[in-house]
Amino acid sequence: MVTTFKKICIYGVGLMGGSLALACKKSNPDIEIIGTGRNEAHLKQAQFLGVIDSFSTDLKAALDGVELIVFAMPVGAMEAAFKQVKPFVNDTMVLTDLGSTKGNVVLLANKIFKTFAKNFVPGHPIAGTEKSGAAAAFAELFQKRRVILTPTVLTEPQAIDRVTALWQGCGAEVIEMPVEHHDEVLAATSHLPHMLAFSLVDTLSKMNDKQEIFKYAAGGFRDFTRIASSSPEMWQDICIANAESLVDVIEKFQADLSVLTSAIQSGDKETIAKIFTRAKEARDQFCND
Amino acid sequence: MVTTFKKICIYGVGLMGGSLALACKKSNPDIEIIGTGRNEAHLKQAQFLGVIDSFSTDLKAALDGVELIVFAMPVGAMEAAFKQVKPFVNDTMVLTDLGSTKGNVVLLANKIFKTFAKNFVPGHPIAGTEKSGAAAAFAELFQKRRVILTPTVLTEPQAIDRVTALWQGCGAEVIEMPVEHHDEVLAATSHLPHMLAFSLVDTLSKMNDKQEIFKYAAGGFRDFTRIASSSPEMWQDICIANAESLVDVIEKFQADLSVLTSAIQSGDKETIAKIFTRAKEARDQFCND
Repeated sequence: MVTTFKKICIYGVGLMGGSLALACKKSNPDIEIIGTGRNEAHLKQAQFLGVIDSFSTDLKAALDGVELIVFAMPVGAMEAAFKQVKPFVNDTMVLTDLGSTKGNVVLLANKIFKTFAKNFVPGHPIAGTEKSGAAAAFAELFQKRRVILTPTVLTEPQAIDRVTALWQGCGAEVIEMPVEHHDEVLAATSHLPHMLAFSLVDTLSKMNDKQEIFKYAAGGFRDFTRIASSSPEMWQDICIANAESLVDVIEKFQADLSVLTSAIQSGDKETIAKIFTRAKEARDQFCND
Repeated sequence: MVTTFKKICIYGVGLMGGSLALACKKSNPDIEIIGTGRNEAHLKQAQFLGVIDSFSTDLKAALDGVELIVFAMPVGAMEAAFKQVKPFVNDTMVLTDLGSTKGNVVLLANKIFKTFAKNFVPGHPIAGTEKSGAAAAFAELFQKRRVILTPTVLTEPQAIDRVTALWQGCGAEVIEMPVEHHDEVLAATSHLPHMLAFSLVDTLSKMNDKQEIFKYAAGGFRDFTRIASSSPEMWQDICIANAESLVDVIEKFQADLSVLTSAIQSGDKETIAKIFTRAKEARDQFCND
């Protein structure tokens, strides 16, 4: 029988942390959820919205009696947060995070939490929207979504079980995979598309007739560029944290796009058709919408 | 007072042509709509679905008494269609098309229709979905959408007015612009995003662990790649027809993506943040969703 958490602290009550708080409350109304973070005004708003029960910017107070700490800030802010939290960590506390990259987070956790690193369960919910902040949080964000945990050989099985149960209570499907594999897969399916969307909108926004260009954008363009409305701060951190895998897939993509461009230039219909058909078949097979 | 069309022929009853038929019927139940095209089974289905009143694969029969011919096939099929229709065109017939590129269509129309080219009103409704075929057609496709007309100095003002009125009856906003400008703007806002979506899905589908890669794709990926489910045939034609403008913007995009990649490689947070912020601001300003 897995022991559920009675009191948890969410460090960084934005879209992700806030949605986790709401989802936990929904599945377990008796749970006590404390928020902490850098910005008191944001925490106040989160409490006002009913996302968290209470908050404190004083970590000693925020972590008092807490059984689980959830690090829910952009990955670039994790190191500072780990260091601030470290003095108040004890062996009965489980730690987890919601970071979009895992290699760097695991390295930092091992380095900073040292013997307590065994209680750190690295996690990444494959969910989100292009919005940010607690006001955008909703309890159903993780429903039928996958959450990837990337425990190391050091991680306590009991801590993994408790974090797994927490996510399952939020309606998510929990999957474990090695850290490096996570970072490679996510570079391809999430980080690369975001780079393309940001870069495309940036290219267009630098054109002379940008007012007009965006005026004639149709529905497909809106869908395609929606992720370019995501938080620049969060994505800047992801790029730095997963630079190696990300640059790898960008280079693969650039090479493939150059092949397509040459085919367009030379009027090579056959190559163009082959690329488009292969893409359409893959998309239709894997995404049924 | 603009004279409305009483009898129109739609050549190519797919998503676009079929939706135009349904929208015309809705705004003017007395209109008679005849379908024609290469594929009798598709036309039969379109009639069965109530998208068209009748059909004929015999162009002489299909065009008898018709006041407007709408060319609604992929742009690569326009030349053959123009040539087939030519013998049955007379001076009272208005001609228009729904092609996604306009430069090549205008050239072909001038070359093939000769003196009747003055009755050809080149058009492009900025609307569509990733689906194809008459079964995907719906009357509201053009509601509150823009339709770009690119008449030349030769085009009869009366023909422009009648086609404009037809589209306005379908709920669309009609805008006129020069042919070349249309092709440049659309290369940026429509053709380039499609190239990126097709190329991205193709890159991923060639990876060893593609089953797994698509498994971890989240909502953002689905939205981002939806346009990669579009018709390969139609898009292959668009690439060829608008090659020059398209290659131009692809190259601009590739240069910008390389700048971003270098910044990621060298950990240059400032440049990354600048690109992402500029993109987010442009997207948030122009697309309010």
